[in-house]
Amino acid sequence: MENNYIYGKNPIFEVLSKNPKRVNKIYIQKGFFYDKRLKNIVDLARDNKIIVQEASLQKFAEFFEPNVNFQGIIASISPVEYIELEDFLEIEKEGYKKLIILDGISDPHNFGAIIRTAAAAGFDGVLISNHRSCPITPTVEKISSGAINHIPIIKTTSLSASIETLKKHDFWVIATQMQAKDNYYEIDYTDMNFAVVMGSEGSGISKTILNKADFTIKMESNFESLNVSAATAVIAYEALRQIRVKEKIALRK
Amino acid sequence: MENNYIYGKNPIFEVLSKNPKRVNKIYIQKGFFYDKRLKNIVDLARDNKIIVQEASLQKFAEFFEPNVNFQGIIASISPVEYIELEDFLEIEKEGYKKLIILDGISDPHNFGAIIRTAAAAGFDGVLISNHRSCPITPTVEKISSGAINHIPIIKTTSLSASIETLKKHDFWVIATQMQAKDNYYEIDYTDMNFAVVMGSEGSGISKTILNKADFTIKMESNFESLNVSAATAVIAYEALRQIRVKEKIALRK
Repeated sequence: MENNYIYGKNPIFEVLSKNPKRVNKIYIQKGFFYDKRLKNIVDLARDNKIIVQEASLQKFAEFFEPNVNFQGIIASISPVEYIELEDFLEIEKEGYKKLIILDGISDPHNFGAIIRTAAAAGFDGVLISNHRSCPITPTVEKISSGAINHIPIIKTTSLSASIETLKKHDFWVIATQMQAKDNYYEIDYTDMNFAVVMGSEGSGISKTILNKADFTIKMESNFESLNVSAATAVIAYEALRQIRVKEKIALRK
Repeated sequence: MENNYIYGKNPIFEVLSKNPKRVNKIYIQKGFFYDKRLKNIVDLARDNKIIVQEASLQKFAEFFEPNVNFQGIIASISPVEYIELEDFLEIEKEGYKKLIILDGISDPHNFGAIIRTAAAAGFDGVLISNHRSCPITPTVEKISSGAINHIPIIKTTSLSASIETLKKHDFWVIATQMQAKDNYYEIDYTDMNFAVVMGSEGSGISKTILNKADFTIKMESNFESLNVSAATAVIAYEALRQIRVKEKIALRK
């Protein structure tokens, strides 16, 4: 059972006002009276584009021991802090930045595995949207093997707007697509800031995002499609391979 | 709950005599009287190097509905048939064969993911040992996304002996090792039959196997080690990339 839940009006109001990015989702007990305090919480959540959902008391009891005084509200909380894209862009770095963007990855195992791989391959961040995406849950934390504390996770309310911002900051956007002309190893990752967009196995990358991509790349598969976390590993390490090979050649000169 | 279990002396004797490779493990109820039939089963299992373990009736009840007449024995059965290395070697193929060898991968998620990736990357088989390895369970089948029916899974009683056999049949054996001199992309996968040995995240590849390897390769990681299924994806696709690039160059000539 995921255990990063908090309950009660005061604790939830606190985290919402001080650290809204850590709140994944809010559940309000069905039929509960909306007093002023509860209304304030719901407004604050909506201002921060956090999903608010009604749930039965039975559902609440799944998350906690019986006899807890929920005060009609529970919230799912991320164990780590997300960062803003603007703050990510201000992080100083020698050389180019490498980013993974996840469009609608809802499976916590895949999400955790991708965070671990991105950190291993020396990527600078993972960007997710707060719609259609798996938030950071204890499962994600566990599967990432602690890597969520070593690589910035950027959460955005609009993937589309974030991609525009990235492009204005000299990032090239690469989207994976089965019908692409180029193979993932046929583009040069060594000479630019770049962001690779990975879509869900079910529905792929949304059209709006695909239309904004500077490059599309494909991957061969002899049996159905590759799992999204395996595909991310292959692309991330191909980029790293190209960078290392180029550095070695530069050293020889 | 894994549900590929059968119980009773007759059904288990049947599958053991006709299809021993499908039997992952046998459990005998603690304190149960070993009659002739039960003794025959245990002998047959040991002849086939299948692990026989005592377990409490309580353990039995975890696998089945209550009130089942176990007759003192249950067996875990693979949903697919494994093949013999000798049969794998006789499969005819134009060009070189590519194989993944797993040394002590006990996590069913990793095992399933590796089978799926191996099939996607056009590998010809996955070889496992029946010691220290995860057998094919329903979880493995599910995570492999059905790929276990599309790529031969070879089961051996001795990894070491199988590697000797492979080498006699013109296979080059490549082992992953943190201290290796070459990076995984610095060897040429295009000109040989090869088998890549992947070890468990905990203990790596056993020394006996490492000593038999023709090449050792390493992978860069900026955060702990890469997950074994991600590492397998990266290496398998690097081999495929080299093969495709070479084919493209050959076509141009």
